[in-house]
Amino acid sequence: MAKPVVTVRILRRLLASGVHTRAARLLERIHPADLGPLLADLTPDEIRIVIDLLFKQRRAANMLRELPPELLPQIFDSITDQRLAELLARLEIDDMLETVENIPEDRCESVRKLLPQSKRDELRHAELYPPDSAGRVMTTNFLALDEKMTAQEAIDSIRAAGDSPDPVLYLYVVDELRRLLGVVPIRRLVAAQPGTPCHELMIREAISTPAEADQEEVAHLVARYDLLAIPVTDVDGCMLGIITVDDVIDVITEEATQDIYHLAGLSEADRVFSSARVSIRKRLPWMLLNLATAFTAGAVVGLFEHTLEQLVSLAVFLPVVAGVGGNGGIQTLTVITRAIALGEIEFSSGLRAVGKEMAVGLAVGSAAGLLSGVIAYLWHGNPMMGLVLLLAMVFTMTVAGLLGAAVPLILKALRQDPALGAGVIVTFCTDALGFFSFLGIATLLLRHLV
Amino acid sequence: MAKPVVTVRILRRLLASGVHTRAARLLERIHPADLGPLLADLTPDEIRIVIDLLFKQRRAANMLRELPPELLPQIFDSITDQRLAELLARLEIDDMLETVENIPEDRCESVRKLLPQSKRDELRHAELYPPDSAGRVMTTNFLALDEKMTAQEAIDSIRAAGDSPDPVLYLYVVDELRRLLGVVPIRRLVAAQPGTPCHELMIREAISTPAEADQEEVAHLVARYDLLAIPVTDVDGCMLGIITVDDVIDVITEEATQDIYHLAGLSEADRVFSSARVSIRKRLPWMLLNLATAFTAGAVVGLFEHTLEQLVSLAVFLPVVAGVGGNGGIQTLTVITRAIALGEIEFSSGLRAVGKEMAVGLAVGSAAGLLSGVIAYLWHGNPMMGLVLLLAMVFTMTVAGLLGAAVPLILKALRQDPALGAGVIVTFCTDALGFFSFLGIATLLLRHLV
Repeated sequence: MAKPVVTVRILRRLLASGVHTRAARLLERIHPADLGPLLADLTPDEIRIVIDLLFKQRRAANMLRELPPELLPQIFDSITDQRLAELLARLEIDDMLETVENIPEDRCESVRKLLPQSKRDELRHAELYPPDSAGRVMTTNFLALDEKMTAQEAIDSIRAAGDSPDPVLYLYVVDELRRLLGVVPIRRLVAAQPGTPCHELMIREAISTPAEADQEEVAHLVARYDLLAIPVTDVDGCMLGIITVDDVIDVITEEATQDIYHLAGLSEADRVFSSARVSIRKRLPWMLLNLATAFTAGAVVGLFEHTLEQLVSLAVFLPVVAGVGGNGGIQTLTVITRAIALGEIEFSSGLRAVGKEMAVGLAVGSAAGLLSGVIAYLWHGNPMMGLVLLLAMVFTMTVAGLLGAAVPLILKALRQDPALGAGVIVTFCTDALGFFSFLGIATLLLRHLV
Repeated sequence: MAKPVVTVRILRRLLASGVHTRAARLLERIHPADLGPLLADLTPDEIRIVIDLLFKQRRAANMLRELPPELLPQIFDSITDQRLAELLARLEIDDMLETVENIPEDRCESVRKLLPQSKRDELRHAELYPPDSAGRVMTTNFLALDEKMTAQEAIDSIRAAGDSPDPVLYLYVVDELRRLLGVVPIRRLVAAQPGTPCHELMIREAISTPAEADQEEVAHLVARYDLLAIPVTDVDGCMLGIITVDDVIDVITEEATQDIYHLAGLSEADRVFSSARVSIRKRLPWMLLNLATAFTAGAVVGLFEHTLEQLVSLAVFLPVVAGVGGNGGIQTLTVITRAIALGEIEFSSGLRAVGKEMAVGLAVGSAAGLLSGVIAYLWHGNPMMGLVLLLAMVFTMTVAGLLGAAVPLILKALRQDPALGAGVIVTFCTDALGFFSFLGIATLLLRHLV
């Protein structure tokens, strides 16, 4: 594709000149997905004009659903409630839901009131599904067929449906109660003899998902079975809608962001473009937790103040024990949480993973401990110092392997997010245990050290 | 879909009983994507029988391409070079490439020799594309049309192509030199009047990618424009192949794993199911780097041994400064590397991000510093101790914001992976600067502290 060569500058000049027909022609040539970043650099007045132009082209709604959520507030601020309601009414239900969630609370009610009754009902109905469930990302826009229809009749129904922005990839064969019987890939329909009945073309036992299922699980199904869309059914197996692969990609990307963020103790709302105020507010609670654990680790050091008084050079090795142990713990934690996220681990093989990670911790800890021990010996001229460091590191790294693997698995078994908070717990434990073991062993062997 | 109720146990019993026809019927009912995990629990002999049965059903190749790479060695060990070559020959070129990469080096040559000449050439040709490029994940299996063909003729060509495992979603209109002119979505073809020529149906200026493009960029394009497949072209714009959305999902998942892993200083080969030996070997170099930085941080503490001798209780606060600073740095680093991975940041807005993160660091550091200062005051009964901690934390957290944002942006500007090694650099700097500022300020104010 020709990259959008149109820069914000040209668009602004056209808007400023008042020749909106030329600006409109320019906008027509830009893909909806490319409009968002362009809008980010305009003034509220300019945004309003652009939205009006796009609205006339019936492309404003399309643009809206492509926008990254962090740009939405800026757009909302520039347009009236009336226009916003008109835009919402043109969106598919899944995009409408997502957009409504981003409208500031004080405007939400009045915008909703301006929606046509049918759209308002549809929205209220969709909001009954639990957050992050399949029901929230599905579109109700799909083609259902009767099993007795022929391939030609099915093709005619596609023609009758007219051009739609959503590509039709599968047709769904349902019975009189709209229960899903099977799925006909469009390619199979095209390749079939016109008179073939749909029930001969359809794939039976099609993979489907209940509306209450978690989006992440749905994404796993789609990825695992290489689907392009998955039907969503209610408890009786009746078709409610479909989730298309482009939405699945969004879910996968969001879930990956969430996993990465949770490992670092971050909230998903804390993005590169969110305001400093939002970021500060979101990070403060984590910082408090972090302070609490850091002071506790400090208190462990405080337990051994008497030892440190007699041999202050021990303090030099505290960062080494903590750094290496923390790193080992986070590495194991990362391997395990990623395996959980990708569905590579079940609790049964979890125990094996814990065992392996402890073995890896023991081995890497021994290697790091030996090397550190030699350095400590050379630095302080006392082999006992090296021994203390070696022992502490082997112990800390083995426990780091145990905790890094066990904490996320336990969180998962408790139906919690395996990544959320696990980083803080593991780092705290490795710090505290590292200090305790190093200073504890040093205290026991103190007369050989000083 | 009915979940595969068949457990390994039933399969093993059928295999042991020698009644392979029943085992074959059982296998027939299992989706290729579900076979892999099943195989993982079988003995080499059982795997060989299952592969033979699947091979007869012409499903073994399909199963192979669905297998997670870490299970491949086990499968390879159970089958002969001849069978492996037969399996490879049935794979699409992108799956063949990926599978060949996992064959142990000592067998690779002999397996390749057993491939049919045409497949061997195809493989050698595909291997000319750079690693992780679009050319390596594309399939050469697509339908090309002449622009003068009618919709009906295009449909006939789909019929003629017969049933294929890959769904046809788009047809590609090319000129006599196979240069890509446009793309016809299959839905549009179906909805069109039979006599409509393809050049009226096709989307011109279709989004495409050069074969040398990085897979991650291709995945971004597909995700951004909600594509189901993207054509791959050479420098002259001639069609070489297509990349389908299921492969894009794999790329997105792999890239997310890579980002998460690199933040923790892990190699991608270090997975939950890789052997302990592999994990140890992969983690040792990182551990060495980690040791080097930890000892350097320790040496910074060593600079102030004289101060610590006079006031050993300062050591209690070292974990607090390091813990809070490190956490702040990693949080910023995570936000920025994720934004880079998702294409949300350009270098121009990079400076704004650095400024914001410094402001956030300053604010969160001030809050954490005040609170820590009060605790330190209460703990040690000396307000100056609180002041030292406050100053050190504000400084460390602001620098953590600066480094957490700047390091990945600089790595990116240098065309390096922004996540790789950034965690180690940032943590080291926050540790060292935290110790230096805290002990440095304490040294300056020492007479007020003791």
